[in-house]
Amino acid sequence: MIDFHHPQFKHYAPNDLQGVADDLRQFIIDRVSQQGGHFAANLGVIELTVALHYFLNLPQDHLIWDVGHQAYAHKILSDRKDRFFSNRKMGGISGFPKRLESEYDAFGVGHSSTSISAALGMAEGRRIKNDSRRIVAVIGDGALTAGQAYEALNHLAHLQSPVLVVVNDNQISIDPTVGITLSAAFFESLGLNYLGPMDGHSIPEILDSLKIWDENYSDRPLVLHLKTTKGKGFLPAEQEQTRWHAPGKFDKITGTLAPKSTTDLPTFQQVFGKTMVELAEKFPHLVSITPAMTSGSNLLEFQEKFPDRFFDTGITEQHAVTFAAGLATQGIRPVLAIYSTFLQRGYDQLIHDVALQQLPVIFAIDRAGLVGEDGPTHHGVFDIAALNAIPNMILAAPSDGLELRNLLFSALQWDQPVAIRYPRSRIPAEIPTVANFQSLPLGKARRIQTGTSGVAVLVYGAFLASVLHAISSLESEVTVIDMRFAKPLDDVLLEEVSKEAPIWVTVEDGTLNGGFGSIVQQWVSNRGKMNQVFTLGVPDQFIEHGKLEELHQLLGLDTEGFSRYFKQLFGENDESDLNLME
Amino acid sequence: MIDFHHPQFKHYAPNDLQGVADDLRQFIIDRVSQQGGHFAANLGVIELTVALHYFLNLPQDHLIWDVGHQAYAHKILSDRKDRFFSNRKMGGISGFPKRLESEYDAFGVGHSSTSISAALGMAEGRRIKNDSRRIVAVIGDGALTAGQAYEALNHLAHLQSPVLVVVNDNQISIDPTVGITLSAAFFESLGLNYLGPMDGHSIPEILDSLKIWDENYSDRPLVLHLKTTKGKGFLPAEQEQTRWHAPGKFDKITGTLAPKSTTDLPTFQQVFGKTMVELAEKFPHLVSITPAMTSGSNLLEFQEKFPDRFFDTGITEQHAVTFAAGLATQGIRPVLAIYSTFLQRGYDQLIHDVALQQLPVIFAIDRAGLVGEDGPTHHGVFDIAALNAIPNMILAAPSDGLELRNLLFSALQWDQPVAIRYPRSRIPAEIPTVANFQSLPLGKARRIQTGTSGVAVLVYGAFLASVLHAISSLESEVTVIDMRFAKPLDDVLLEEVSKEAPIWVTVEDGTLNGGFGSIVQQWVSNRGKMNQVFTLGVPDQFIEHGKLEELHQLLGLDTEGFSRYFKQLFGENDESDLNLME
Repeated sequence: MIDFHHPQFKHYAPNDLQGVADDLRQFIIDRVSQQGGHFAANLGVIELTVALHYFLNLPQDHLIWDVGHQAYAHKILSDRKDRFFSNRKMGGISGFPKRLESEYDAFGVGHSSTSISAALGMAEGRRIKNDSRRIVAVIGDGALTAGQAYEALNHLAHLQSPVLVVVNDNQISIDPTVGITLSAAFFESLGLNYLGPMDGHSIPEILDSLKIWDENYSDRPLVLHLKTTKGKGFLPAEQEQTRWHAPGKFDKITGTLAPKSTTDLPTFQQVFGKTMVELAEKFPHLVSITPAMTSGSNLLEFQEKFPDRFFDTGITEQHAVTFAAGLATQGIRPVLAIYSTFLQRGYDQLIHDVALQQLPVIFAIDRAGLVGEDGPTHHGVFDIAALNAIPNMILAAPSDGLELRNLLFSALQWDQPVAIRYPRSRIPAEIPTVANFQSLPLGKARRIQTGTSGVAVLVYGAFLASVLHAISSLESEVTVIDMRFAKPLDDVLLEEVSKEAPIWVTVEDGTLNGGFGSIVQQWVSNRGKMNQVFTLGVPDQFIEHGKLEELHQLLGLDTEGFSRYFKQLFGENDESDLNLME
Repeated sequence: MIDFHHPQFKHYAPNDLQGVADDLRQFIIDRVSQQGGHFAANLGVIELTVALHYFLNLPQDHLIWDVGHQAYAHKILSDRKDRFFSNRKMGGISGFPKRLESEYDAFGVGHSSTSISAALGMAEGRRIKNDSRRIVAVIGDGALTAGQAYEALNHLAHLQSPVLVVVNDNQISIDPTVGITLSAAFFESLGLNYLGPMDGHSIPEILDSLKIWDENYSDRPLVLHLKTTKGKGFLPAEQEQTRWHAPGKFDKITGTLAPKSTTDLPTFQQVFGKTMVELAEKFPHLVSITPAMTSGSNLLEFQEKFPDRFFDTGITEQHAVTFAAGLATQGIRPVLAIYSTFLQRGYDQLIHDVALQQLPVIFAIDRAGLVGEDGPTHHGVFDIAALNAIPNMILAAPSDGLELRNLLFSALQWDQPVAIRYPRSRIPAEIPTVANFQSLPLGKARRIQTGTSGVAVLVYGAFLASVLHAISSLESEVTVIDMRFAKPLDDVLLEEVSKEAPIWVTVEDGTLNGGFGSIVQQWVSNRGKMNQVFTLGVPDQFIEHGKLEELHQLLGLDTEGFSRYFKQLFGENDESDLNLME
């Protein structure tokens, strides 16, 4: 195998580069088959990565990879081949470019469609500082469905800054790309020079294009349009691109995916997908919307059964929210399935178009809480705080699969915007086979048990099972409430509990700054209660990547952590690690 | 004058319509010259409005006005001629379309570029419900610089839904439009049918176009491109379009604008603009960025003096934030001037591109707090809560003009993202003529006075002057702290104050749900203090429009309100109106 450590690799002859690409491809197949991670997108940009690394003078020149999960070859080729075994592992390298990890990572990316904006900022910075580095952004056709990319292209055309925008056109995001068909006319109508389409798997063709760029466009923008195949070089991935986006572990010879345990409980996502199909059968005016996350949100069955009531809007969180509001004005009941971290892109539209107009849009906030290996760009920990500030919003979180079903069903009866958040994890217990939908009363919590110890645990969301498990081994008996709603809070029940239990512990899978715990603290303060409130949740820092269980353990947000915490609280052992007590 | 009340007007002959338009134009000139409000944009769409109202079957058909401040003629022509005297006044009609105000207002708009998304949602709703209403969105060329409009166009092309998108191309937003030059090629490259450009001031030409649409495109989308002149029919407004965007009162004969009092104190905006020029002279790597609010943010002088370090990005909050982050990676110090309400559109980018990467971008959050006549779509009351949740952020608010100067200067020395929020109002006291910049210590509050009454008032932002005024008439002596920072809080000073004063009153110009008061409540709770915290600020509801002073009075957030509150707190009178006490 060729040693493609960066300094050596630069001295290879152009004819040797396909050999580098072949080795690189095999290296990625080897590693991802054993470790899991993003796969098909990375295979699609190997020739491009080799050509760019060969042609550019990195890291002095700046190379920005949009979305970032296509940057494995970049990482390996620059300075992380030897650390790649640690990809996406706790303490290891990130699955996305990250400035603090390497000087080759010019900009941190994880969310889509930021690369041209960042590149343009760098190019203007370079101008102001009279610097001569070259700036290249690589962006996919899917990422070009997002408005931010268009905003940046338009501004780039206005400024005519020297940025090379490489469009990696493979006709697919995670699911097939919605809408856009890239053409010279599109870019030229914006006022940008265009070169292409070229074969993105031909290193000589890419190198020739880069030479044209360097010789003719060093003082202005150029769009270089490359056609590539997602999954290139691994036949099963070329044939089933969505499945092979991030396939988990697999047999690199046969292409057999590692079997999923059939005894595992379903995920919240699966319960959501199944429930949506059931609800669509009951309610002819129910529709579902996803901004380019059909498979991730488990809406494939809905899409298949109700194609006329299913909308993949592309990577367009802003549009998706207002689109849902528009539907709601017509008496349609839209359920917008959106990851917590991506809803951050629709925050204004949620406020301005949905909440202000009191339109009954249901936000199914997926991947709420910590998400695991995708790390800080993808953790969904800010939604409770961000949405609590908005008038007219109902905030709910199911503690298990049955609750998720019933919250979705009930939300259809509330004539108000509702946000239902659920985590990226399995439900804690099987849903009874014959589970009829139940109407849950708006703003009412659920008392799980009543204790005499003077301590009440108020749980918001899916940590309830771990909490119950933790307290089952306590000698002291605590009151446990499944809060269900962060907004409105259940005033009546909280009044009761404030008398029963002077000490409250809140538990949530979100940031403590402004999150559920702080909402409870504010409730106590506003009512002049004397209850002491301890809050368990995510501290005010960006949490790195790692397995979900590892992250929960790190933050004391698992059964063991809760157990340790409560034993300490009750003096039932002598451990002194109570660092989450504030 | 023709009576253009809607039912009658529909029966006019086409030849009479220009007469309607002329009367309508005169009516708007009369009214705005006496009342103030948005002006030039409204004059530009009069012929279009008359033609659309004549041709469509409103309100059964749906007409959505992007941005909304161009909808005066629409309001007058539908059902609000007789109420137009109350435009933008407290209790009167809104300056923007508003669903609750009239069935003719199909969608509430205020922020730019939402109209196509909403229209597409309506069109799909219509399809699902087998309804036959027609859907028209009117959007300006400026609004088409925003990514959301592009997202919606792309999705519209994908769905091929029957929506008429009327592009009102006047080459200007509030300031001249950045970048985009609209062409048939642009829309056609997206897969949309295009008709135009037509003369947007010729009613026959518009009616002919609408007829073509109705006869040929009733089952699919069409973009109708109209050229118009902002300010049409009022010469001074045609000549100076930015100045006449919202000119205040004026003489409708001479075009003389109502004089601005020269004895008034400057606004926070003026202090910001002046300070930015001074700082740019000191710091060669300082740049300023505005998403299409050059004049509103008082950056015209900066733009003129430092054109190479000034960026108007268009109506592109998402892009603007990441663009700033890209600049910051190069050692440039970007100051992004952005209205609080519009920063909601850059929330994800602030989290993902700035805070996570700890890039030292300064957010100059303009129009923070209630904004007055623009009302609920524009009040900037959510930023404290939304940003407090984000790690690595510094949150600051000046209590006066001198503090704003010094905070901007100091922020340049902090190697972290900083948000400095200031209101749409005049500074409370003149800035000393020779005011050298002072470095303020990060996270340190300022003790204004120490009282013996056991009450401490913690003020965040520009209500400080009113608070001081209010307490000056008290018999009791209270401690007053100018907090300066909501994040990080001044732990040392708060520890001191917690011992001095058992009762705390927080004061802010933001939502109480998760805002500054709640941050203080959380601080008290986390530290197990016994201080009672009362919070004054904006309650958890959307606040309607009205004069800023009226809104502050309504919410008890002015000198009189504070005075009443404190007198009640101290039992210094017998009023019992304490409804803001929670």
